[in-house]
Amino acid sequence: MYPGASRPTPHYRGAVPPTARRAALRTLLAEREVDALLVTDLVNIRYLTGFTGSNAALLVHADGDAASRFGTDGRYRTQADTQVPDLERIEDRATATAVAAAAHDLGIRRLGFESDAVTVDACTALAAAADGVDLHRAPGLVQRLRLVKDDDEVDALRAACTAADAALAGLLADGGLVAGRTERDVALDLENRMRRLGAQGPAFETIVAFGAHSAVPHHRAGDAVLRTGDLVKMDFGALVDGYHSDITRTVVLGQAADWQRELHALVAAAQWAGRAALVPGADVVAVDAAARDVCVEAGLGEEFLHGLGHGVGLQIHEAPALARTGVGTLAAGMTVTVEPGVYLEGRGGVRIEDTLLVRDGGSEALTRTTRELLEV
Amino acid sequence: MYPGASRPTPHYRGAVPPTARRAALRTLLAEREVDALLVTDLVNIRYLTGFTGSNAALLVHADGDAASRFGTDGRYRTQADTQVPDLERIEDRATATAVAAAAHDLGIRRLGFESDAVTVDACTALAAAADGVDLHRAPGLVQRLRLVKDDDEVDALRAACTAADAALAGLLADGGLVAGRTERDVALDLENRMRRLGAQGPAFETIVAFGAHSAVPHHRAGDAVLRTGDLVKMDFGALVDGYHSDITRTVVLGQAADWQRELHALVAAAQWAGRAALVPGADVVAVDAAARDVCVEAGLGEEFLHGLGHGVGLQIHEAPALARTGVGTLAAGMTVTVEPGVYLEGRGGVRIEDTLLVRDGGSEALTRTTRELLEV
Repeated sequence: MYPGASRPTPHYRGAVPPTARRAALRTLLAEREVDALLVTDLVNIRYLTGFTGSNAALLVHADGDAASRFGTDGRYRTQADTQVPDLERIEDRATATAVAAAAHDLGIRRLGFESDAVTVDACTALAAAADGVDLHRAPGLVQRLRLVKDDDEVDALRAACTAADAALAGLLADGGLVAGRTERDVALDLENRMRRLGAQGPAFETIVAFGAHSAVPHHRAGDAVLRTGDLVKMDFGALVDGYHSDITRTVVLGQAADWQRELHALVAAAQWAGRAALVPGADVVAVDAAARDVCVEAGLGEEFLHGLGHGVGLQIHEAPALARTGVGTLAAGMTVTVEPGVYLEGRGGVRIEDTLLVRDGGSEALTRTTRELLEV
Repeated sequence: MYPGASRPTPHYRGAVPPTARRAALRTLLAEREVDALLVTDLVNIRYLTGFTGSNAALLVHADGDAASRFGTDGRYRTQADTQVPDLERIEDRATATAVAAAAHDLGIRRLGFESDAVTVDACTALAAAADGVDLHRAPGLVQRLRLVKDDDEVDALRAACTAADAALAGLLADGGLVAGRTERDVALDLENRMRRLGAQGPAFETIVAFGAHSAVPHHRAGDAVLRTGDLVKMDFGALVDGYHSDITRTVVLGQAADWQRELHALVAAAQWAGRAALVPGADVVAVDAAARDVCVEAGLGEEFLHGLGHGVGLQIHEAPALARTGVGTLAAGMTVTVEPGVYLEGRGGVRIEDTLLVRDGGSEALTRTTRELLEV
């Protein structure tokens, strides 16, 4: 699934070329009354061009691609030839200021910049470079476009979710959860399985937590040894074509104790309620509440220590946030996680998480491993 | 080597506790004439506190630790108890603004902030939160402290370098480089070996490039298959206790052709010259030139596409830059890479890289794999 590396592979192969994404961005530029946007966030640049290198800047001119510019440095010359053949290039190690310096000659008077990504010092450098041009804050424009995924993006997310599901299925089928293994062993096993299934790598540092460690939401996999009766919390995902999957399952080694079964059932009910609330038009705070209320009614609202979920795509955490502090409503084509967790300090915790696609009439789980309690 | 995860392990266990690092920072605050520094860069926070979570802010007050504050959110409560027991805590999801809001009550009138890390929009939020307090740019202060490594840091770097050396030795001893293997196989093999040797993971995405791919400085390991006669460029490193190692070796599968041997000898000579120039007091531009001149004299200066090296520590790339555009001089205790490379597009390239510790009278290579051309 992951593109072969005999040459840098353009990221976007399907129905939605970067040119269309840049065209969509132009409608937002008009709204902000700027002549162009200087894009310096590398994830946004990847979205708008397909470029995957580590140093780049992009100037999207309202007049079209002919007046737009792509900047990178000499290390990425060959890669840029392949990935961004359609934009005139500025080659300079200090890409952002070099591209900003071209603004005046491109007839730009008002230049938007990503004030949510550009540091205070970098902004000073941009202002000095963009002589005769007014800089204007224009945060979050590309992120707005990225909220709703197109078909190519959904394909990549689906592949990333499938790799994660298959890795877990393989781990369980091969007896990968046995007494005596360490958290780190299991984490590495999951990651290697995802790679063999075509993932570029893990989507983030795999969390594996045994026993009481499962009560720590972001426990780091370590030397703890698996014992019969332990809860096993696994939070992991795959990276495929730049897109991330995110899944958590909590199982028990051997037969579950009553309290483990009850805790799991509660979180499963909360997760179901959260998934059921995932419809176009739903307020993100209401989606969070749908799951949270289940825990509150069970007297365990305080033990649900985090938000319900987050958008997922080119970044593992992106908009929208499904949380009490979230803002906005859902739309078809958004991909989000739903991941309630209840954590009993010193005893154990359960989290159940899926990556889901919001669709008209409901949602589709892209991660499909059963949410029943597994006793392995 | 990597700390066990039965509980979050404080990062600094040795002779240099975080309190001493914060004391060192206070001498720089006086120089900047600020009453306190708001630290929001997570790497800098780790350096100054040992905290390894993903959401934190730190206010280092010139008056001492009693007036200083550490901020994080509820997810990291247990971890902060262990890792940062010695600072009064502010628990809030919006850590930076919450900590800034406390500044006035702590008697702060001039508050420094990391203008090289804080975005334009975040700065606006800080200014609104820090009511009655003047914000002042104070970039790079903690980075200045981090330039010279203390004994604990050198120990971690040494362990990270040893893991990388041992992984490569194991790969070669076990016949890991054979015709038919893919770049991705070899990369994963190296990474798994480093983990088994105690590394938390790779220090960065492992580069393995076969044949003509070796001419691409930042080639991404893919499906290309190893063939007899290929150059094999491997650029990789291990992450241990938060510290990164970085090594590159270029070998040949089978007997080297004359042009490969000559290219390797040239780069080895350039690397030797670069290492020899690595002494306290040396100008970073002169160190770069020492290696570059060797390539220029051979008529291949234009094929040396990047800088000579970079500082390495809690980040894989940090100050100082050994490059034509670099600024400053070396000091004992700095750890840097020396990594000249010559790339013949379409044919192949050679890079040889070590991580080295600058010491009085010379340098010590922390990565120790032979720099002779290996025919495997």
